[in-house]
Amino acid sequence: MQIQGNLIIGQQEKFGSEGHIKAINPATNTEMEPAFGLANLHDVEQACALAQAAFDTYRATTPEQRAQFLETIADEILAIGNVLIERAHSETGLPVARLEGERGRTMNQLRLFAKVVRDGHYLNATLDAALPERTPPRPDLRMRKLAVGPVAVFGASNFPLAFSVAGGDTASALAAGCPVIVKAHSAHLGTSELVGRAVQKAVARCNLPEGVFSMLVGDGRQIGQSLVSHPVIKAVGFTGSRQGGVALMRTAAQRKEPIPVYAEMSSINPVFLMPAALAEKSVGIAQAFVESLTLGSGQFCTNPGMVVALESPELQSFISAASTALAAKPGSTMLTPGIHQAYVSGTQRLSEIEGVTMLAQGQVGASACAAQAKLSSCTAQHFLATPALEDEIFGPSSLIIRCENMQEVQAVAEHLEGQLTATVHAVAADYALVKNLLPVLERKAGRILFNGFPTGVEVAHAMVHGGPFPSTSDSRSTSVGATAIDRFVRPVCYQAVPADLLPPALRDDNPWALPRIVDGELKLAV
Amino acid sequence: MQIQGNLIIGQQEKFGSEGHIKAINPATNTEMEPAFGLANLHDVEQACALAQAAFDTYRATTPEQRAQFLETIADEILAIGNVLIERAHSETGLPVARLEGERGRTMNQLRLFAKVVRDGHYLNATLDAALPERTPPRPDLRMRKLAVGPVAVFGASNFPLAFSVAGGDTASALAAGCPVIVKAHSAHLGTSELVGRAVQKAVARCNLPEGVFSMLVGDGRQIGQSLVSHPVIKAVGFTGSRQGGVALMRTAAQRKEPIPVYAEMSSINPVFLMPAALAEKSVGIAQAFVESLTLGSGQFCTNPGMVVALESPELQSFISAASTALAAKPGSTMLTPGIHQAYVSGTQRLSEIEGVTMLAQGQVGASACAAQAKLSSCTAQHFLATPALEDEIFGPSSLIIRCENMQEVQAVAEHLEGQLTATVHAVAADYALVKNLLPVLERKAGRILFNGFPTGVEVAHAMVHGGPFPSTSDSRSTSVGATAIDRFVRPVCYQAVPADLLPPALRDDNPWALPRIVDGELKLAV
Repeated sequence: MQIQGNLIIGQQEKFGSEGHIKAINPATNTEMEPAFGLANLHDVEQACALAQAAFDTYRATTPEQRAQFLETIADEILAIGNVLIERAHSETGLPVARLEGERGRTMNQLRLFAKVVRDGHYLNATLDAALPERTPPRPDLRMRKLAVGPVAVFGASNFPLAFSVAGGDTASALAAGCPVIVKAHSAHLGTSELVGRAVQKAVARCNLPEGVFSMLVGDGRQIGQSLVSHPVIKAVGFTGSRQGGVALMRTAAQRKEPIPVYAEMSSINPVFLMPAALAEKSVGIAQAFVESLTLGSGQFCTNPGMVVALESPELQSFISAASTALAAKPGSTMLTPGIHQAYVSGTQRLSEIEGVTMLAQGQVGASACAAQAKLSSCTAQHFLATPALEDEIFGPSSLIIRCENMQEVQAVAEHLEGQLTATVHAVAADYALVKNLLPVLERKAGRILFNGFPTGVEVAHAMVHGGPFPSTSDSRSTSVGATAIDRFVRPVCYQAVPADLLPPALRDDNPWALPRIVDGELKLAV
Repeated sequence: MQIQGNLIIGQQEKFGSEGHIKAINPATNTEMEPAFGLANLHDVEQACALAQAAFDTYRATTPEQRAQFLETIADEILAIGNVLIERAHSETGLPVARLEGERGRTMNQLRLFAKVVRDGHYLNATLDAALPERTPPRPDLRMRKLAVGPVAVFGASNFPLAFSVAGGDTASALAAGCPVIVKAHSAHLGTSELVGRAVQKAVARCNLPEGVFSMLVGDGRQIGQSLVSHPVIKAVGFTGSRQGGVALMRTAAQRKEPIPVYAEMSSINPVFLMPAALAEKSVGIAQAFVESLTLGSGQFCTNPGMVVALESPELQSFISAASTALAAKPGSTMLTPGIHQAYVSGTQRLSEIEGVTMLAQGQVGASACAAQAKLSSCTAQHFLATPALEDEIFGPSSLIIRCENMQEVQAVAEHLEGQLTATVHAVAADYALVKNLLPVLERKAGRILFNGFPTGVEVAHAMVHGGPFPSTSDSRSTSVGATAIDRFVRPVCYQAVPADLLPPALRDDNPWALPRIVDGELKLAV
């Protein structure tokens, strides 16, 4: 079945009745067929009612059933074939090789969560035996985590596969046992429909209740806000702008029953270049920096938007090498005309701020929405005095902060808002300085990395793609990696519950072979 | 040193300059000496600055240092001696034996968190090895949790020791590595000062930075709101009214950097009496119910404020036995004149609601603020149609919901807001009915218990004292038990960090002998 422009509501499809929109090819700035019908509030109501009806059944599935469902989604996405990559390429301007890689990543995420569900560590199963002889007697106490309820997921513009309809938020919520309602991102509507239908098929193949998954298309904010306001929805996953994320946070906080919002928003990802590292390899660092800055037209949450270093001949050497590398970079298509326009005006605003010097530019691109990469600089004094210099510019623009001394480097670090990442380039001779910097970076960022660049977020057990506000709405969480599932569960304690009524995770015979904390000691299943 | 009426700011004490208040003995409704000086905004500023200055040092302490600190606090509280119990008794009207038990519980909590810190499971240490041969190569990734930052704790009226200055919130925040600033509850100011000074002494004895602990006294909401608004504060612990908790949630959500609030607020703790259980032991259940209802003048978050059962002769037998037991219960002093007044007007309002029948009352008490226990009933139809019937009445009042059939029982359960607890009385013949009810209760409550009553919250590893809103502000957390520490940590990932710069929890040699997840497999330290 080709792209129909439909909403997906459980096992039904329908063409939305509130007008329609079309996807845009950003390379040519032209509309693409077909039209997508827009959802109305009745569609939201129907998707939520189905999700609620599915919830108790779906969350009671065994780990094996849920793992197989996640693996089936991965299989169905692969089965879409090349039409998915072609459509995503046309809708986003992202290169085919990148999209093939992203498809692989999306499938890996689903399979990682299948493993997480089978392992069951996330259930945090805990048993405290009754102490009938104690005064007063202690009852039998058992605890496990369970799914919070239906989750609303907002697809990201910059990862049409890995952070969208069946991306990390959806995979981790489904893994936790939560039905998911996706609001498709208007930047890649056809891609969304293809993937949404793959999930829909997996639901049917696995004999799950249809309300486990729905996908809506909406223009503007009404459908999204009404989803987040709906009493059935118990958590929200979002990747996008600070403005958009904060709006959802406010809506969620003002509900009769406030709910958690996991919004991954805004980060400038500072890179600290330590003096000895710069003396040893300024040119190599500069070249790798420009690769990271311009990768995917700079459209990564972890794009290195700021470099902090001591004013020095070595910094000049870094700037010179980075400028040369940047000048050779072709302009490449951005995701949407709106994102391109925001990049153009953001870099324009930056260049007009007093104290900011333009150092180098990439080439002007041939396509309609091509980004020209930019490298600027200012002094630490200017940075500290100018709040606007900390605004994220989404795209291949970075700002070098020139510091007079290490006190200024520390002051810049302390001044920063919350970040997804903080990067340090250092060699052994720098470690004494780094030891002062690290505690600050630990307070500011969710991931600290050395001698590399922050783009390229591994899907792994130890990954944290999160950080203090405004990088995310909730620094206690990650949206990438195995522990992303923790966002969608809550603990329930069972006190003196008869054996016949205990959930399998907490039965004496431990049928799921879970690791469990028994009387305060962590025990692996034998 | 006796009670001075002082603020505790790090290792300093001072008499607050913004006027003063006195504690009130609720048994006699008379003021107690001395006066307590009220904090001003400069005091808030100073406490926050000290907390921030202490944070990086304190969170870097070893597990052993932090565990010994928690144990030292417990020792110092015991060393206050009988003056603590006497003062708490005068300030709260709670019986001496109860307060001695609560002191033991407070010390047990501190010692439990010492164990939690030594065990280190809460750090969630996770290591993914580098894969240099992969395309692209995977870097070395390591993750641990660390303290979120300074925490503001609001003491509870109803547990002057176990949920106040050195109660569960403070103990778990300190265990996590967070400095704590307590706002003392005005219902037990002298008790707070004595305990606050014990914590202050423990800070000095353990050579910790003074900003690890401060305690402020304030009237009304200004000091509390300014604490929650302060940029240094990164999380809030609160136990109290729904109105008070929601006000703090709003303040925290409106900050430039929103922060988590863990407010434990309002719960009516429904008790479901299944037909066969009622047929078998209605009198015994009724007597135990009245004990739970009137314990501590009904001033527990988990007080059984609602009973749900089928209309039947067995329910009549339950009501008759409960009424007899209740009529014999003396009126006992409530915590404050304000709480007593709210109880009187709450029960008065309840009695005026159409369809509510008063079934029985306890005795009128002799003391100034004595609560007269009340038992009322209404039909399920009335309950479902009358939102006011779901309002918590803090004190020894409970409402029996008479249901025509099990569909009504289910409907009442579905209708409920979030609860700390849900109780079921059932025997084997009831299990088929209970299997339908349990999934609803799992969605509504943080703790489900059988054949007992919800008062008496064990401090254990498997305990959950939490639940969906409005029972708490954050259903993902518990304020009692080992996992309360999870509220005050956030994950940080270390990517390709040189061995010399790794935190001990993540070093190859695992010096703290932590359980760790290594390449996706949970490993116990050998």
